[in-house]
Amino acid sequence: MCMQKIDGKLVAEKVLSECKEQIAELKGKGITPGLSVVLIGEDPASMVYVGSKARKCEELGIFSHKIVMPTESTQEEVMAVVEELNNDPAIHGILVQSPPPAHIDEEAIVRAINPAKDVDGFHPENVAKLVLEDPTGYVPCTPAGCMRLLKEAGIETSGAEAVVIGRSMIVGKPMALLLMGKAGNATVTIAHSRTKDLAAVCRRADIVIAAIGKPEFVTADMVKDGATVIDVGINRVKDASKKSGYKLVGDVAFDEVAPKCKAITSVPGGVGPMTIAMLMQNTIQAAKFANGLV
Amino acid sequence: MCMQKIDGKLVAEKVLSECKEQIAELKGKGITPGLSVVLIGEDPASMVYVGSKARKCEELGIFSHKIVMPTESTQEEVMAVVEELNNDPAIHGILVQSPPPAHIDEEAIVRAINPAKDVDGFHPENVAKLVLEDPTGYVPCTPAGCMRLLKEAGIETSGAEAVVIGRSMIVGKPMALLLMGKAGNATVTIAHSRTKDLAAVCRRADIVIAAIGKPEFVTADMVKDGATVIDVGINRVKDASKKSGYKLVGDVAFDEVAPKCKAITSVPGGVGPMTIAMLMQNTIQAAKFANGLV
Repeated sequence: MCMQKIDGKLVAEKVLSECKEQIAELKGKGITPGLSVVLIGEDPASMVYVGSKARKCEELGIFSHKIVMPTESTQEEVMAVVEELNNDPAIHGILVQSPPPAHIDEEAIVRAINPAKDVDGFHPENVAKLVLEDPTGYVPCTPAGCMRLLKEAGIETSGAEAVVIGRSMIVGKPMALLLMGKAGNATVTIAHSRTKDLAAVCRRADIVIAAIGKPEFVTADMVKDGATVIDVGINRVKDASKKSGYKLVGDVAFDEVAPKCKAITSVPGGVGPMTIAMLMQNTIQAAKFANGLV
Repeated sequence: MCMQKIDGKLVAEKVLSECKEQIAELKGKGITPGLSVVLIGEDPASMVYVGSKARKCEELGIFSHKIVMPTESTQEEVMAVVEELNNDPAIHGILVQSPPPAHIDEEAIVRAINPAKDVDGFHPENVAKLVLEDPTGYVPCTPAGCMRLLKEAGIETSGAEAVVIGRSMIVGKPMALLLMGKAGNATVTIAHSRTKDLAAVCRRADIVIAAIGKPEFVTADMVKDGATVIDVGINRVKDASKKSGYKLVGDVAFDEVAPKCKAITSVPGGVGPMTIAMLMQNTIQAAKFANGLV
């Protein structure tokens, strides 16, 4: 078996270079796409994510706007910031970094974002558009990135058996909807914690999307020969040999699964870089919508 | 095998008797649930559906309001009627009978209905609530009816392998979402026209939901012994022995499939009566929402 390691960094670079072209075109029309990221509190992982989003914006020439609010901010204060951003014509995309502190009603915040600026694709209006296959909605970045990886790796989804492990609102469900819709045309099974004999279900798959959030959960016995495996998981596990004391692993036991695969992504270097690239793409899309260019 | 024929009429009667109790309670508070059905044109099948919805309302004591608009009505005229109904406090549920004439933008009409009155569950806001498992939304009547049939027949969905054949917005997708969500906890596969070896996929199922719109499509070789089969199809096929010249058949070849099943619905007398019963239930729910009773 000639296994293909799908290089998420490389594909992300391709997406980002498309982004650069589109941004140049927009700037030619006097439009600079703008993304505002709101962070409430100082969760270290969230700070890292927000920082890398801002850096990517700057690299591309997207106007990047970061608002850091104190942990003790009230719901009303956050809502007021969102409302201000909704009304700011320089801002085309808004995202509130998840998770906010426990006293904040995240769902209410997401609903408060203007759906046309909801570049995360989490607003109910965009969720509905995904189900209804309405192309004017924003597709959540991670599943959109997975679809692009499959496409770039030359993996045919139409007629393929796909198994999505995990039924979250952020990855599992939108991933299943994309794969089963007209864009994917796959036969999709959604497996989860209540699935009996998950190994047998996974072994049916031509395409496995692992989004269950458990380190190295998908083992070699769960994957059929010649399958394609996309690993969405990002799990921190202890590793005394690392300076930081931990390492990042995916939901797939890469070393044992990879040799069986037609194609597979790694963690890091797989889905991760795609998520941020698709966020940039959504932000550009938002700038186009706002200016009547699509 | 002791096959159980799931009697949709009987289960619908049970739902309707629950409805009657709730209506009596509402009337005690001075509230009469009201449903308005808008029909554009004179499609004979639509007229039958609209008539039976109105009759069921009258039987139960729901205020029934039927608006028949001429085929040549404009989009604006239909929108104006919807707007009026949105603002009418006596009307809790609104539905526009599908399909409207070709010159009418049905999607725009559905979007114009106040989501709180969208008892069909087709408005994007209710679609999103289904994905997000938000219980304040309306679940489309046919899939809701299928879930209730499974429950009443004592069929455990949790951990079961369910195969939904068909990926329509009205049945297939919402059915899959209900079965995969916390209410169903099933391992769900969505099969459709692009699925390779549909027979093999179906044979995996403990529960088959046939919603593909092809007469007697599901044959005995596609169903494993002891499966439960819910037939959503309503197809007219020619039958010279009938006065009308046609008979109604489902998507399942009942006579050959039934002997293999643990439980099965028939057409007619299966899902059909449930759809209208769930519409009544949604209308009552709408009256409760409107009056702050849930």
